[in-house]
Amino acid sequence: MAGVKGQVQKRGVERRRAMVDAAIELFARQGVRGTGVAAVAERAGVTPSALIHHFGSKDGLVRAVLQEADRRALERLSASPDAEPTLEQAVEWFVRDAEHTAAAERELAALHTTLTAENLQPGTLLHTWFRDRGRALRGHLTALFRRAVADGSARPGHDPELLAAETAAFLEGAHLLWLLDPERIDLVAVHRGYFAGLLARLRP
Amino acid sequence: MAGVKGQVQKRGVERRRAMVDAAIELFARQGVRGTGVAAVAERAGVTPSALIHHFGSKDGLVRAVLQEADRRALERLSASPDAEPTLEQAVEWFVRDAEHTAAAERELAALHTTLTAENLQPGTLLHTWFRDRGRALRGHLTALFRRAVADGSARPGHDPELLAAETAAFLEGAHLLWLLDPERIDLVAVHRGYFAGLLARLRP
Repeated sequence: MAGVKGQVQKRGVERRRAMVDAAIELFARQGVRGTGVAAVAERAGVTPSALIHHFGSKDGLVRAVLQEADRRALERLSASPDAEPTLEQAVEWFVRDAEHTAAAERELAALHTTLTAENLQPGTLLHTWFRDRGRALRGHLTALFRRAVADGSARPGHDPELLAAETAAFLEGAHLLWLLDPERIDLVAVHRGYFAGLLARLRP
Repeated sequence: MAGVKGQVQKRGVERRRAMVDAAIELFARQGVRGTGVAAVAERAGVTPSALIHHFGSKDGLVRAVLQEADRRALERLSASPDAEPTLEQAVEWFVRDAEHTAAAERELAALHTTLTAENLQPGTLLHTWFRDRGRALRGHLTALFRRAVADGSARPGHDPELLAAETAAFLEGAHLLWLLDPERIDLVAVHRGYFAGLLARLRP
């Protein structure tokens, strides 16, 4: 019985994944507005009602795609959301993440940037989601810079919140520049350059 | 006669400006897709055919708005496009521009960011415009960093093109973060922080 239940659960996970993958592909290619639930369901080989059963609505599906992208990034970094990396470890992560994005995740990165820009105004559907995700990322970065000062790997005298905002700005902007001009912007090299400069500036 | 001709020209400039201002306002509030030529014309107090006469098409109007934004930025900085500022001067410009944007240009900044994100893919209407504008900005920044090494205000050993890409990424990203969360992101402070760090890193 446990075996059958396990198989059913596994099939459920695989189906969810197929739906999210189909959504990522179609959203990135045609935009979120231009992609209907029926098209995502067809691409994933499920019925539209099965898709709605999983995600509640198209908005739920978009949110699931964004969360899945973040989950995969953490998984790639083999990190739990409450891990406490050192400054050097965090920098390695960001560079590795840039390598992965440049090699295999252009669609997802484009989706993230396009949706962020579509949700700048309060009241737009995903505004709070993106705003709060930004706050959470800056919160992690602020804690990272504080720990680095505490453990002696960074010298004091910098405002950790400003450093966090600056780094988050760089990360968003680097992806935007690369998406717009991949022939001229080397996403990985520009990450290495920025973080080498940051480490040099903070070195005690 | 010269006076009459001057008045007619002045009225033409004022009308063009009224149309661009109306477009900025409506595009920022309702999006470019959601704003028709007729609405812009009505807001500016001209006929739709007068508007088309000036800009050729809606795309021409969008381009005019983006160019006007860049022109106003240069005018504010009292700089010509081929000015050759020193590193310190350029940093002052960027901070002053952030002050002006934060105080008075939220709509235009949002329009710029939204349109960039809508035109990431080759083949989209304004893709080449945004890509080439990015290349031109990075070209100016690269030249700036080269001059700074040549005149002794920056030490050698940095790749000027990478520094230019990094700085351009920071500028794009800082605006995006601020647009998304103006309560928590101080656009001017984060500019000051980034450029102070950059100058410290480059100081000979």
